[in-house]
Amino acid sequence: MPTLDAGTLEKTASEIFTGHGVPAEDAAWIATLLVRANLRGHDSHGVIRIPQYVAAVRRGDLNPRPEIRVVTDTPTLAVVDGDRGFGQVVARQGVALAVDKARGQGLAAVALRETGHVGRLADWAELAATQGLLGLVWANARGGLHVTPWGGAARRLGTNPHAIAVPGPDRTVALSHDFATSVWAEGKLRVKFNRGEPAPPGVMLDGHGRPSTDPRAYYTEPPGSLLTAGQHKGYGLALAIEILGGILSGSGAAGGDPVRFANGTLMVCLDPARFLPVADFHAQVAALLAWVRTAPLAAGAEEVLVPGEPEARTERERRGTGITIDEETWRQITAARDEVARA
Amino acid sequence: MPTLDAGTLEKTASEIFTGHGVPAEDAAWIATLLVRANLRGHDSHGVIRIPQYVAAVRRGDLNPRPEIRVVTDTPTLAVVDGDRGFGQVVARQGVALAVDKARGQGLAAVALRETGHVGRLADWAELAATQGLLGLVWANARGGLHVTPWGGAARRLGTNPHAIAVPGPDRTVALSHDFATSVWAEGKLRVKFNRGEPAPPGVMLDGHGRPSTDPRAYYTEPPGSLLTAGQHKGYGLALAIEILGGILSGSGAAGGDPVRFANGTLMVCLDPARFLPVADFHAQVAALLAWVRTAPLAAGAEEVLVPGEPEARTERERRGTGITIDEETWRQITAARDEVARA
Repeated sequence: MPTLDAGTLEKTASEIFTGHGVPAEDAAWIATLLVRANLRGHDSHGVIRIPQYVAAVRRGDLNPRPEIRVVTDTPTLAVVDGDRGFGQVVARQGVALAVDKARGQGLAAVALRETGHVGRLADWAELAATQGLLGLVWANARGGLHVTPWGGAARRLGTNPHAIAVPGPDRTVALSHDFATSVWAEGKLRVKFNRGEPAPPGVMLDGHGRPSTDPRAYYTEPPGSLLTAGQHKGYGLALAIEILGGILSGSGAAGGDPVRFANGTLMVCLDPARFLPVADFHAQVAALLAWVRTAPLAAGAEEVLVPGEPEARTERERRGTGITIDEETWRQITAARDEVARA
Repeated sequence: MPTLDAGTLEKTASEIFTGHGVPAEDAAWIATLLVRANLRGHDSHGVIRIPQYVAAVRRGDLNPRPEIRVVTDTPTLAVVDGDRGFGQVVARQGVALAVDKARGQGLAAVALRETGHVGRLADWAELAATQGLLGLVWANARGGLHVTPWGGAARRLGTNPHAIAVPGPDRTVALSHDFATSVWAEGKLRVKFNRGEPAPPGVMLDGHGRPSTDPRAYYTEPPGSLLTAGQHKGYGLALAIEILGGILSGSGAAGGDPVRFANGTLMVCLDPARFLPVADFHAQVAALLAWVRTAPLAAGAEEVLVPGEPEARTERERRGTGITIDEETWRQITAARDEVARA
């Protein structure tokens, strides 16, 4: 399998996007975030998405040069209409608005609609955190249903992720979590399917509502469905995220009609400096993390980690070793690159 | 086991609290919320707490006549110092502030410190929802550690609950979830312990970091610990709640020093009317709930429920049949009542 350094991958991705009409600065930013996902070990949100994005541009589902409009704008709130732009481009503007408003008022909420795949929510929460704010982000996935309500046996909800990032001193991120409200994101199941491997129990149901570990029973008719994380807990959160991300933004909640995919997104930023002196805040967060690390290890565990730490380690490693891409993904990416180069 | 109607229980609870110096209106409110927890099927948060609250007043840990102060107050934010008041009394004032500010600005955040046990977070989220606002609530539990970090094997975090309630039309609640970030709240394990029954797998570790189903291995030395819901997901959320509820409020995060119990709490309220017409909001929420109910049932499931629905059903039932209290709890409550009556 080919192994590439981050810079080469970013350049390739950027050229493909500019070749499809994306302005150079936007293309570079989208490329940076896709490669960042690979660097951080979340290959399902990395350059594997390039062919999918290109296909969406071709269908007209993604607009390479959107006119992003702020349709609601108050000192504390904004609703942004992304005009079908790349999620990375729309969300960047959304976070900038949320950060600006939260600095002014202590907290702010920004909702995004008509926006493509926003990628890893952690990127947006962390973008706020590196500017000194707590970032909370939720996104639904209109047109991308995979998850069954608890007790049900059919796809009715998106994998509706939830993310929170907490600022550390000097533009660092003290901790950051980002999780699907399903036990697994769909991409992880697809990897198992492609490899012909079983999934662990508790991840999915087959199309008849029976527990299954066979990914083939997911990608068939009737289709399987993903189970919610923590049973009724993930279900409750997933439903709330349909409302927070989908309905408040105007993107729309999950439903039965065929619709163009969009990540309806809500971000809330809070400025810790409005609550307590920032140095106290950082000291208390550091003490909390030190405290949880004093726990003795569970049987079989090697370490108590802080959320975000595994990603930071993987990034350090992959910045050195490069990023390994599976053959099929690399074939699609080079085909897209060559096509753009010929045009 | 004695079965009592809600009114009798409320009157009894109220008399006990006034007997310990709580003003009559506050006592009635605390009693209402405790009995409401019983009515809704969450007996662990109901009148079983009366003896615990009385003991806390005796120790000076709970102040029956607090001077609640708003120590930070902006158009969008408040920090409330509860002066060791009953959580029910402090949080009621906190929600009123949050609702008022969110009506003015579209969103608001209110943090509570120096406050006793706030009871079910759902009560506070729903109090905002019945006033037309989305309510998000998080609470840590300084001085009440039960949960191990993921990979660890000792109590380092509270059960740190998370709640969201969504308004329906006409002062109703469309949906409401409230969950511990541990697989089980500690109260459920204590019930199993008291009954001599095992817990299911995946709930707890023994004091040596081994998976266990024996509640006796929790209440011993070295003590057991509760596992986080959804493994690393609940751990990430629990840590974030230490910061949102504990650090921002000034209550403090989990740590190794012995401290008086307090629920450091953060509530965020959002006004959907700032995002879209309220009638549209209600129609879209109703359509979402109707959509998830169209799911066929999983093997063994009887129904797809909306979060909050089981509680509403139990309340309807128990308003008719009354509330059954275990003998030991009723013995303690009547003893507390008789003691107050003699004084």
